[in-house]
Order: sequence, then C-alpha cells, then structure tokens
Amino acid sequence: MEDILVSDLCTPVFIVDLQKVKQNAQAMLERFQQMGVQLRPHMKTHKTIECGEIMTGGSRRCIAVSTLAEAAFYAEHGFDDILYAYPLPLDKVERCAQLSEELVLFHVLIDSHVALQQLRTRPLKGGKVWRVWLKLDCDNGRAGVPHSEPAALLLAQDIFRSEGVELTGIYVHCGNTYSCSGEEHIKASAQKTTTFILHFMEKMKAAGMDGPKSSIGSTPSCSHPVQDMAQLSEVHPGNYVFYDVQQMMIGSCKLEQVAVRVLTRVIGHYPSRNQLLVDCGWAALSHDGGCLPTGYAIIEGHPNLRLLSMTQEHGRIEPISGNLHYEKFPIGAMLSLIPYHACATAMMHAIFFVHSEGKVVEKWTPTRGW
Amino acid sequence: MEDILVSDLCTPVFIVDLQKVKQNAQAMLERFQQMGVQLRPHMKTHKTIECGEIMTGGSRRCIAVSTLAEAAFYAEHGFDDILYAYPLPLDKVERCAQLSEELVLFHVLIDSHVALQQLRTRPLKGGKVWRVWLKLDCDNGRAGVPHSEPAALLLAQDIFRSEGVELTGIYVHCGNTYSCSGEEHIKASAQKTTTFILHFMEKMKAAGMDGPKSSIGSTPSCSHPVQDMAQLSEVHPGNYVFYDVQQMMIGSCKLEQVAVRVLTRVIGHYPSRNQLLVDCGWAALSHDGGCLPTGYAIIEGHPNLRLLSMTQEHGRIEPISGNLHYEKFPIGAMLSLIPYHACATAMMHAIFFVHSEGKVVEKWTPTRGW
Repeated sequence: MEDILVSDLCTPVFIVDLQKVKQNAQAMLERFQQMGVQLRPHMKTHKTIECGEIMTGGSRRCIAVSTLAEAAFYAEHGFDDILYAYPLPLDKVERCAQLSEELVLFHVLIDSHVALQQLRTRPLKGGKVWRVWLKLDCDNGRAGVPHSEPAALLLAQDIFRSEGVELTGIYVHCGNTYSCSGEEHIKASAQKTTTFILHFMEKMKAAGMDGPKSSIGSTPSCSHPVQDMAQLSEVHPGNYVFYDVQQMMIGSCKLEQVAVRVLTRVIGHYPSRNQLLVDCGWAALSHDGGCLPTGYAIIEGHPNLRLLSMTQEHGRIEPISGNLHYEKFPIGAMLSLIPYHACATAMMHAIFFVHSEGKVVEKWTPTRGW
Repeated sequence: MEDILVSDLCTPVFIVDLQKVKQNAQAMLERFQQMGVQLRPHMKTHKTIECGEIMTGGSRRCIAVSTLAEAAFYAEHGFDDILYAYPLPLDKVERCAQLSEELVLFHVLIDSHVALQQLRTRPLKGGKVWRVWLKLDCDNGRAGVPHSEPAALLLAQDIFRSEGVELTGIYVHCGNTYSCSGEEHIKASAQKTTTFILHFMEKMKAAGMDGPKSSIGSTPSCSHPVQDMAQLSEVHPGNYVFYDVQQMMIGSCKLEQVAVRVLTRVIGHYPSRNQLLVDCGWAALSHDGGCLPTGYAIIEGHPNLRLLSMTQEHGRIEPISGNLHYEKFPIGAMLSLIPYHACATAMMHAIFFVHSEGKVVEKWTPTRGW
C-alpha cells in the first residue's frame, strides 16, 4: 500500500479507524464468549469482507446478512454458516436454494406460512434440508409473528413438522432498544425481549419442540447484555463494529468508541449569513439524523458548530451561538464529521479508507445491491 | 440483451422508463433551442453515460457535473465542454488542471479569491487558460458571492484581469424555485433570479467586462422559463430528465412525466397493526421525503396506501384510512414506488434497469465517488 496520509485524502471521504474496529469487535467477541453465547455478527453496516473477518475473529464462520447480495458475496469469499436474516422474499427462493446446496450452512428466516410453502415446493438436493429460523416479533413492530399470538407457535409447529425443512431457531430483533436512553433503560428493554423469547422457547419445549436455537440482537442490547441473555443460543448485533452518534445517544457506547468519520473540507465562507460551506452533502453523509443539537453530525473538536443542512454535495455549517471565526476555518481546512448513523453513511460510499496512526493502511470495498 | 420482463426483476430495483426519459430530454432541448439559449444539462441526478448522451441530443458536448469523479467519467467516455459546477475544492486543483489540459473545454467554478489564487499558482500547459465561471448567489443562500455585494463585481474583475485565467461566465443556481408551488410561483422566482443576473451582467459590461456568458438553472425554472431567460447564454437544469414527486409538488411536471420507480414486493402481512412490509427500505429509496400524505413515496395505483416508515431494508405500508385489504396485496405482490427525490433515490443504486414496453432494454451503470 502506497503511503497515503489521512490528511491528504481527497474529500469527502469515509474513513475507518482500524484499531477502534478491532477493539469494538474484540470486546463483543469476549463479552459473549464469557457468557457462553455464540456471537453471529451482522454484516449489514459495513458489507465488507475485511470487517467480516475481524468480527468473526478470523473464522469467517457464523454471520448474519440483510441482503442476498451480501450472502452471495460472503459465500464467494470463503464465509460459511450464513443466516439471511430477512423475511424470505419469494423472488429469491431459488438463489437461496442454491446457496443452501453450496454451503455447509445457509439459513433462511420466515414469518409466514406462504414462505414455508415456497420452501416445501423447492426441496434441496444432496440430502440437504432448509435451515429455517422463525422470526418472532417481541413488541418491536417490524417483521415477525407477534410472540403473544397463537399463530407464532402454530407456525413453529408447521416448520418443525415439515418434510425437508428444519426449524433451526427463533430469531428476534430487539429494535425497541433504539428508543432507549442510557444503560439501565437498554437493559430493561433487553430483559423484556429476552424474557419473551425464553418464554416462547419454553412453550415450544412444552409442545415437543426441543432443540431449536434462540437468538436476539441489536447493538444496544448486546453492548449491555442482561444476565438472562446467557440462556440464549446466539446474539446477532452488527452496528457495534463502527458505532455512531445515535448509539452514543442511546447509551450503547462512548463517543470515543465510534470508529468512523466523514472527512470534509471548507469550500466557502459566507459572512453575510454567518455560515461556511463544506464539501459534504447527503451524497456523502446520508439524510439520516438532523435531530442533534449539532445538526446532522457531530463536528469533531468543534462543539459550537452545527451541520445545519445539506444538499447533494454541499453542507451548511454555522455556529450554535455567536459569530463564526472564519480565520479558524480557512478555505481548504479539513473537518471531521462523526456520523449520526454509520449504517446509512457507509451505504453512501463505494470505498472505505481504513487508517491507523494517521496513515491509510487498507481500502475496503463493500458489496451493494440485493 | 436477454429478454427480461420488468415484472420478473428481483426487488428492490430502480427502473427507468426510456421513452419518458427521451421525452423529458427532448422537450427541454426544444424549449431552449426555440429560445436561442444553450442547454447545458446537469448530470448529477443520474451520472450515467447513456442518459448524458440522450440529454445532449447525442452530441456528448456541453454538460455540467457536480463532482470531479463525474467530470473524469464523462471525459473518459468522449464527452467534452464539461463544467465542474461546484465551488472549486482546493484538494482537486491539480486534477482539474489535467482535465483542462486534456479536454477542448473544461470549466471550473469559483466564488472566492482564495480559489482564484490557487488557479494562478498552477498555470495550464499547452497555451491553455483556465475557463472560470463566477458563482453568484441570487438570494438562494448556498454557494456564490451575493449578487448585491460589491465583492461580486470585484471578484469578477480580478478573474477577468488575471493572467492565464478567462472569466468565461456567471453561474447561478436558482434553488429558490424548490420552495415554489405552481407554475406562476415558479415563474416569479425564475424572473427574480433572471433579473438579478442580467442586472449583474449590465454592471459587468459597464465595468468593461463584455463577453462573459450567463447561466442559470434548476429544473422548476427551466421547465417553466420566463421570456427574459432568452437573454441568457445558457441554462443548466438536471433533474428534469427523471423528474419526481417533489418536482410534481412544486409544479415542474405532471406525475405521468416522472420516469423512475423503485419496484418492491410485499414480504409480510401484519394484521394486528393493519400494516404490511415491503422489501424497500432507505437503502433502496433514500431517507429523503417523508412529508407526503402518502409518506416517503407515492405508491402507484394505490392512493389509499402510505409508506409510513423505513429501516435499512424494510418499508412499512399502511392504509391512509380503513382496514388493509390483504387479499389485494398477497405476499410476493409487486408494488411500484414513485420516488420523492429522484437524485437521492438514484444515488442508492449501482445499476439502473431501463425499460420499454414492459421489457428491460438496457442497464445503466452510474459513476460514484468524488
């Protein structure tokens, strides 16, 4: 790798702090190793091979993905035991069948009889069975059969009894934790979800279904797990490898744990409106956020600056109070933005510049599409 | 091209109606040909070679771009007379110099003496001069020297008098038109901007600067030009080739002129909350919008449906009133979303599927990065 300084990169640019990524990944691996729970890291935030390798501790085994494009990308690069953690789309059954036949372990997720029926009509070759996780909704209100409805146990039974299909586990996204504020609040939310899924596992056992695994996930809950989570088989957080301002606000991490930035440069001074422009618009940061006292991001080292608004390639910055001291921010000066939502910001970039000690040490290329 | 039906595409997918694109492009070309004004179409919405070819009427000459990556991409593919319509970032001066030396016509845009100074310190080889547009702010409040400030004329004079630099023109973005509602309102806004720039051109002439061109642009103003715009040298709209719901709300176009869609499929039914899920989240649509009565998009043919919220890969849909008739939207059924902001939605896709008469006829690959 040629010797490129981070400070010499053309902007806007998405940069990743390799040491922080490794620390975040290692902390999560150790946390759940100590609890005796399998970590199945989710790849959706970064979608890169290199970061997947770090999150799996080098094993390239046992991951969750959000798109079939990710599943295929990781499979091509030697990853295995891949859970396509998304309500099985009917237009992708054949590609899922092929991955199931090619890999040692490829898992799908369903929350309807319609999807189960589709699996039944496409038996796998080579003596394989579909590995199926039932998506349970524990009051999160997105995908999944509501845990309290009899339909949940009925669907579990139908999967359990189906020919050519194995009920591998019960999968829950504890997205409720995203509305939490602080560690105690997160733990209360994680406890609730854990209690719901463990209760469901008991009901399954009572109905003769002993064996399926249990998994919950979200970066807040897995950053501050409750003791009962030790009774789960797996957890599947993803964002934690980068973290972001949103996670800091929720209480999942400290600001210094956030591993990613968008670097931008000052491109203009506009004293008549007490603003400056930077070369980072929503094309580089995403539209997500805007709710912060500092606008769409935190401007590192400048707590009195606010990223007020963006167009495609322009960002407007103003002081939160007082007059802008333009001499501190000459045209061409670099500013570092800490993203509100790392998943959304990473999606805007075709290359991630990975750095250590001020130098670019790797370039990561995420996969895209579906 | 293999025979793929649009209805068979895997979702989510960004599709472009080739006939509508051609009609939108042709209408704009004819509108300004009749007015005797040069159209310099902006590439930022789509960033593809094929659409650039259509917008230039096949000439591959006279375009505006928002990033240097676009400039290089179009230059590599035989385009020339390229205006990098963005306040010249100081980290990109050398690459701009190279493009200026390679192309017949490559233009940069500046709004500060700092940027002018940078151009002076990098004289072009081969007897070439920097082609410089001064960015003027006609009450839009983004980049540019405010038109009413003496600084504007002073900077014009400094560019005009600089060795190795030519003051090619005055460039104005009439972004104010984005807050308009209806044709009359758009025309009033376009008139204001036009009057300001023409007045500035007069002041320049009085100060001995005769020759520089004048250019304004925005899709609303160029969709409904006022007569005084015939006195301009150029216009530079971009979004019009796709149009979108935002443009329809502003009054730039009718809904039937919008050339792009995101196709999505139903992936789940959730009667307990009167919702369904589709496989389109913000990763496929962008976060832009949300302000519509129908949520983040218009769901074509279903005026009673609202795209309530999205996560990365999920979209929640509910009826605006009454109960959802799930039998009309079986799992696997395709829905067509008309995007709020085509520029933002296009940015989320690595491939555009271009269709005609229900079949995919081309695949366009946009450039990315900066």
